[in-house]
Amino acid sequence: MQTAIPISGKSPAESSPLEAYLARVAEDVEKELRAVAQARSRLGPKRLWEAVEYALLGGGKRMRPALVCATAGAFGGETGPGSAALRFGVALEMIHTYSLVHDDLPCMDDDDLRRGRPTVHCAFDEATALLVGDALQSLAFEHLLEVREPRFSLLAALLAGGATRMVEGQHLDLEAEDCRPDLDGILDLQQRKTGALLAAAVTGGAIAATGSDQGLGPAGLKLGIAFQIADDLLDLTATTEDLGKRAGKDVAAGKATLPALLGAAEARRRAERYRDEALLAFEGLGARAEPLRSLARFVVARRK
Amino acid sequence: MQTAIPISGKSPAESSPLEAYLARVAEDVEKELRAVAQARSRLGPKRLWEAVEYALLGGGKRMRPALVCATAGAFGGETGPGSAALRFGVALEMIHTYSLVHDDLPCMDDDDLRRGRPTVHCAFDEATALLVGDALQSLAFEHLLEVREPRFSLLAALLAGGATRMVEGQHLDLEAEDCRPDLDGILDLQQRKTGALLAAAVTGGAIAATGSDQGLGPAGLKLGIAFQIADDLLDLTATTEDLGKRAGKDVAAGKATLPALLGAAEARRRAERYRDEALLAFEGLGARAEPLRSLARFVVARRK
Repeated sequence: MQTAIPISGKSPAESSPLEAYLARVAEDVEKELRAVAQARSRLGPKRLWEAVEYALLGGGKRMRPALVCATAGAFGGETGPGSAALRFGVALEMIHTYSLVHDDLPCMDDDDLRRGRPTVHCAFDEATALLVGDALQSLAFEHLLEVREPRFSLLAALLAGGATRMVEGQHLDLEAEDCRPDLDGILDLQQRKTGALLAAAVTGGAIAATGSDQGLGPAGLKLGIAFQIADDLLDLTATTEDLGKRAGKDVAAGKATLPALLGAAEARRRAERYRDEALLAFEGLGARAEPLRSLARFVVARRK
Repeated sequence: MQTAIPISGKSPAESSPLEAYLARVAEDVEKELRAVAQARSRLGPKRLWEAVEYALLGGGKRMRPALVCATAGAFGGETGPGSAALRFGVALEMIHTYSLVHDDLPCMDDDDLRRGRPTVHCAFDEATALLVGDALQSLAFEHLLEVREPRFSLLAALLAGGATRMVEGQHLDLEAEDCRPDLDGILDLQQRKTGALLAAAVTGGAIAATGSDQGLGPAGLKLGIAFQIADDLLDLTATTEDLGKRAGKDVAAGKATLPALLGAAEARRRAERYRDEALLAFEGLGARAEPLRSLARFVVARRK
């Protein structure tokens, strides 16, 4: 009889320290996400909160909460259950999830598959998917502002700014299908679409641990762009099975990406340069920052 | 040569104190909404922020900001430009506007007309309308949390809670078309859909002025239900021209409303009872609360 094996295909003993770190954060994040959705379901409309839970608990690397916790940890902050860092990571994951649910809608990317499962509007219906995204956004702010401490106001302001910039990026992304942007245009688009929330993860981790963003905004943005280029490269090279979403869709849609503009090899070089610039900012942080540095490397090296 | 006359068709000298009050708040609110949208448009994607401005500045009674200011004023708080009350009113109007833009989408109510103009997805496109709503929601929290004072964290938490309950109400409203709810079901739906944000307006006004909600939550909820019943009655009796949106649509869609369940006369009696219960809570507040009491009466008496 076979026992369950982790997603990586390795036994826990074989998994790398980074895999173990990601798994630990993912477990904490998912526990908190489930608890929030189920608490709501007891007080509000069951079907809506079931759909929220479906959206929140469909897997995913939980990269943003991991970045929050790794940055908080780099400054000696708490990152386990009950910590400000984990709470912010969970709120960030709610915002990220809302953006995926809305992005998959027929009027946007019209995707039927996300992380290997039917997207929310396919599993439920379009109106429910719209409301799931809407509810997830306010829920993220509720979750953060439940704690009446000045640090959480700062984190909520950071989250709100990141969320608005993300929407701006998505709008630029739609426009880019018609008026093909140049390199600067694509980088501006990606700084908003992906960079803003990843930068918020890094600076939010610093705020959760120390009350200050420690000047990490620019490094976070660079990591965000590196992440987005890696994503665009994977869309070119990975299979639908690997990604859990349709591969090759961006090329088919004529999306504005760095690989499309510069070719895969040059795009990869740029992603590595952005990653290295981010790593430089994390260099002086000592041994406690090793998970953060590993994550920064993983952002570019990942295969799905 | 004719000079511009107010919307009511009366000269300023003839307009009632409440009309003058509503006009004053609307002017302040619209000035602030326009300033925010235009500042964003200088830094971000023009077309998105144009669409946001289109959504925000399409008229409307600005009832929620007026309630915020009237309640703040009842406690002696500032309500003009630069006040906490006005800032909260503007944030509340952003949330309300996002809900209208999403509610009008084809997958929801599929409306082409709002306040006498094409809805956002008709004037622009569906994807833009989706993103306009998404951006308006985070913008509301950004706008509030720009001010680093404990009062604004409280207000943001209140707004987030109200926004989530509003989405729950909209989901119940969709479900109600299939499984017809009884009286308690309809009241629960309306407390969430409309009551939550109107209650947030009243308690937020009290918080803006005093730092405490002054126990006004229940009165705000009652006012919200009265407002919703009045809205449902208007859908039955008013013309499309009066409403600036299609009249009679709720009946056609078989929406769960109190007039549909109890008949118009009994529904109006209930609206008046809820209004009177709310007025009771405002009774002890003295002369400064006159705009608040007038507004509470107007909620039921209005003809559009």
